Amino acid sequence: MPTKGEQTRERIVHQSAILLNVRGYAGTSMSDIIEAAGIQKGGIYRHFESKEAIALEACRYVLQQRIEDVNAAVRSEASAIHQLKAVCMSFLDLLAESRIPGGCPILNIAVDADDTNPPLKYLVQEATHQFRSLIQDIVHQGKAQKELPLYINGEVIATILISTCEGALMLSKLYDDAVYLHRAIDHLMAYFETLTP
Amino acid sequence: MPTKGEQTRERIVHQSAILLNVRGYAGTSMSDIIEAAGIQKGGIYRHFESKEAIALEACRYVLQQRIEDVNAAVRSEASAIHQLKAVCMSFLDLLAESRIPGGCPILNIAVDADDTNPPLKYLVQEATHQFRSLIQDIVHQGKAQKELPLYINGEVIATILISTCEGALMLSKLYDDAVYLHRAIDHLMAYFETLTP
Repeated sequence: MPTKGEQTRERIVHQSAILLNVRGYAGTSMSDIIEAAGIQKGGIYRHFESKEAIALEACRYVLQQRIEDVNAAVRSEASAIHQLKAVCMSFLDLLAESRIPGGCPILNIAVDADDTNPPLKYLVQEATHQFRSLIQDIVHQGKAQKELPLYINGEVIATILISTCEGALMLSKLYDDAVYLHRAIDHLMAYFETLTP
Repeated sequence: MPTKGEQTRERIVHQSAILLNVRGYAGTSMSDIIEAAGIQKGGIYRHFESKEAIALEACRYVLQQRIEDVNAAVRSEASAIHQLKAVCMSFLDLLAESRIPGGCPILNIAVDADDTNPPLKYLVQEATHQFRSLIQDIVHQGKAQKELPLYINGEVIATILISTCEGALMLSKLYDDAVYLHRAIDHLMAYFETLTP
């Protein structure tokens, strides 16, 4: 059982993750975090020394959740093509009401931090590296099972899948219309089909 | 000749556009703008009543520049396939030192504003609409010139091109490595080639 202090800390991290994913780093103040977590103003400094420290932990948490969600979607499928499709479909879930609103934390934090916040940028690099490895592992297994031809390159597939889906998610959130993500996923599935022997 | 007042206003808009494209809306303060534009504190209010008003004009300006740059790249090519390639290649220019640093304003402002700032979100919707129309016009012309088959859909091509390049730009800026954008462009060019009769 987590102690009361541990529960408070988890609540701060979870609520900060939501604020950061929706509003970005500069758009989230300590007062916002204190209000969202429902704690006393002085109380937060018993858990974190600064907004920077909260943001690091909250971003690590929300990025990890995203990777875990993709991993869970992949594990429920057997073949490489179905696993790649499951990765694509996980982007549609980000348009629906989810535990952490605001879309994909990789896209959000990357765009927010790439020119301004090296520690957060580094966290997104690490999470995106895990995301790419997950896709490269699917391709590697697919080759071993003779579902995919040996000449295809897992790094290239990972780049194309992530780029296309993140960009289409941006359009779908911009227009509040899932059609962009659906078109992107249809395109990727047709592309993956051309790769099957 | 622009008056001194007009020159000051242009300088405020240009410098604000850079700040907004690099740091986002919440990350840019009036003091930042005043400092970057090199004007007196009181002087800015002779031109704009608020940060909101500056942001609207600066975002309109930077989005328009992006659309004009893509238009110029397209006009220098004759065939539909080369024009589509020119649109893709324009994303590489955003990685280099450009007039407005910070990457693509469509991606930056969309991700910054989609959940928080309806007026800016609306500006990006309009600019992205222009961007999509430009690509749809290329496809339309390509069909008329029998360079592209009649069954392909310009809206779908626009969605795939913009999604893939914006997502790959995010990765290239995240890792400070152009390889992601190059892979995405290679993929799109191979896809466009499959469309030629």
